[in-house]
Amino acid sequence: MKETRGMLKNTTSVRVIYGDTDQMGIVYYANYLRWFEKGRSEFLRQIGLPYAAIEQQGFHFPVIEVNCRYNQAAHYDDVIKIETALAEIGRARLTFDYRVARESDDALLAAGSTIHACVSKSGRPVRMPKALLDTLAAARASTAGEPEA
Amino acid sequence: MKETRGMLKNTTSVRVIYGDTDQMGIVYYANYLRWFEKGRSEFLRQIGLPYAAIEQQGFHFPVIEVNCRYNQAAHYDDVIKIETALAEIGRARLTFDYRVARESDDALLAAGSTIHACVSKSGRPVRMPKALLDTLAAARASTAGEPEA
Amino acid sequence: MKETRGMLKNTTSVRVIYGDTDQMGIVYYANYLRWFEKGRSEFLRQIGLPYAAIEQQGFHFPVIEVNCRYNQAAHYDDVIKIETALAEIGRARLTFDYRVARESDDALLAAGSTIHACVSKSGRPVRMPKALLDTLAAARASTAGEPEA
Amino acid sequence: MKETRGMLKNTTSVRVIYGDTDQMGIVYYANYLRWFEKGRSEFLRQIGLPYAAIEQQGFHFPVIEVNCRYNQAAHYDDVIKIETALAEIGRARLTFDYRVARESDDALLAAGSTIHACVSKSGRPVRMPKALLDTLAAARASTAGEPEA
Repeated sequence: MKETRGMLKNTTSVRVIYGDTDQMGIVYYANYLRWFEKGRSEFLRQIGLPYAAIEQQGFHFPVIEVNCRYNQAAHYDDVIKIETALAEIGRARLTFDYRVARESDDALLAAGSTIHACVSKSGRPVRMPKALLDTLAAARASTAGEPEA
Repeated sequence: MKETRGMLKNTTSVRVIYGDTDQMGIVYYANYLRWFEKGRSEFLRQIGLPYAAIEQQGFHFPVIEVNCRYNQAAHYDDVIKIETALAEIGRARLTFDYRVARESDDALLAAGSTIHACVSKSGRPVRMPKALLDTLAAARASTAGEPEA
Repeated sequence: MKETRGMLKNTTSVRVIYGDTDQMGIVYYANYLRWFEKGRSEFLRQIGLPYAAIEQQGFHFPVIEVNCRYNQAAHYDDVIKIETALAEIGRARLTFDYRVARESDDALLAAGSTIHACVSKSGRPVRMPKALLDTLAAARASTAGEPEA
Repeated sequence: MKETRGMLKNTTSVRVIYGDTDQMGIVYYANYLRWFEKGRSEFLRQIGLPYAAIEQQGFHFPVIEVNCRYNQAAHYDDVIKIETALAEIGRARLTFDYRVARESDDALLAAGSTIHACVSKSGRPVRMPKALLDTLAAARASTAGEPEA
């Protein structure tokens, strides 16, 4: 994960249900990607760009790459904290960084990132419109004093 | 489940992955509904009406009711057999019945049914076109010579 | 759904993520069963019997039957309200009723129920211990004046 | 992805169901991790080490890192081919590489890898027993005559 100090972060939380676990008694690894999605969705809402509005404008941000490093297991009924930051902005590409922690003691459970293309409704890669870029860039530049959540 | 003797059945199978299980060491109850979907999808393909083609004609069959009775647990790596039959056909409604069994010994794991509306692309309930109804009715009536697992 | 007026209800909520939807643009039908689980988990926590504690005492409540009637579709980013009530208590069996609504206008999206067996760690059906039954019965008897989460 | 020419590969396939898709009309990104799991599970079965047997010997291979690059979208009803190879073997660590393709035209949909720790039942990292290592090493080295899709 890139250096995220000083960047705007969104923090959201979710409680593990039985359906998230597997027979090892821990959260199945694919489910962290659902949490990443929740994290970036709440991040975009926080900066005034809910993803539903982005889609209404005719853009999608499909994931073109994901990575996740698992540090400790999450268990049934744990409250999980997802911290999301916008790490990089390109003309047609975004990178989000995530930190997944157990809320009770802030233990790091996993960290990862997703890279997104910006595509039109028809799936063609497109540049993001300036208004969108500006809002994202402002969010990225926000400093540590920013109100969070 | 209605009497299904003499009716066309589709039999398909799937192997349980880790991601299907929960911390009780058995398949999570919601995942049986994914198997039901696979069952009816293969049923429709078998009678020459793949669901993708139905959608291309502008129809959807959303589930309006589901029930499932769980008899025995499915475990990791089990090969599961899904038997699907078309139990009832109405002008704008279909009912599928399912039997989920362990392939190794045909032990009944679960049985259930789904009721579907027929809706247009915009989500409005519509009657099924005659050609569709006829194919479904033929599938429901078919008996002789059908391979049944 | 049984008459639930006058019974203790838990109300919890969840926001629909992209991963919950399918290509019809609505929440996939199996995901409501995850919401039911969240509902009963919060219900049990509210009455002082978190499911994790029940499991630590050596009991499981596997679902032996589920039904769900789908009324209106849930969409991406909707905030969903899940109302859960304990409808019936037997010596070795419980029934929960659920009402799933859109939070913004309380529109009914789905309603259903789950029936649970009480089993020991080894999976054998067992009677619930008296302390457990008493707490559940008290929860069921609670009347409309009850504080709700 | 590492060079995998000459290495043993397992090829397995799966058909996309509605429940795998999201409202963009394509397979949700987290579901590729379920396919990766299916791939490595079939790989281990092919070399005579089904994961269930590994677990019975008291070992688990939890994922400690995953990455996936998405190239083209998978759609409803597509038959997907998953190719899995064992890329690296350490004393307490394994790396699998995956190639996910559309079966009809072998178009690359995604490629990725998972790194696994070897842990005991209690979750403590342990060295793999020699018999296990030897079988894995033989699988990694095998070349001649292997059917490769």
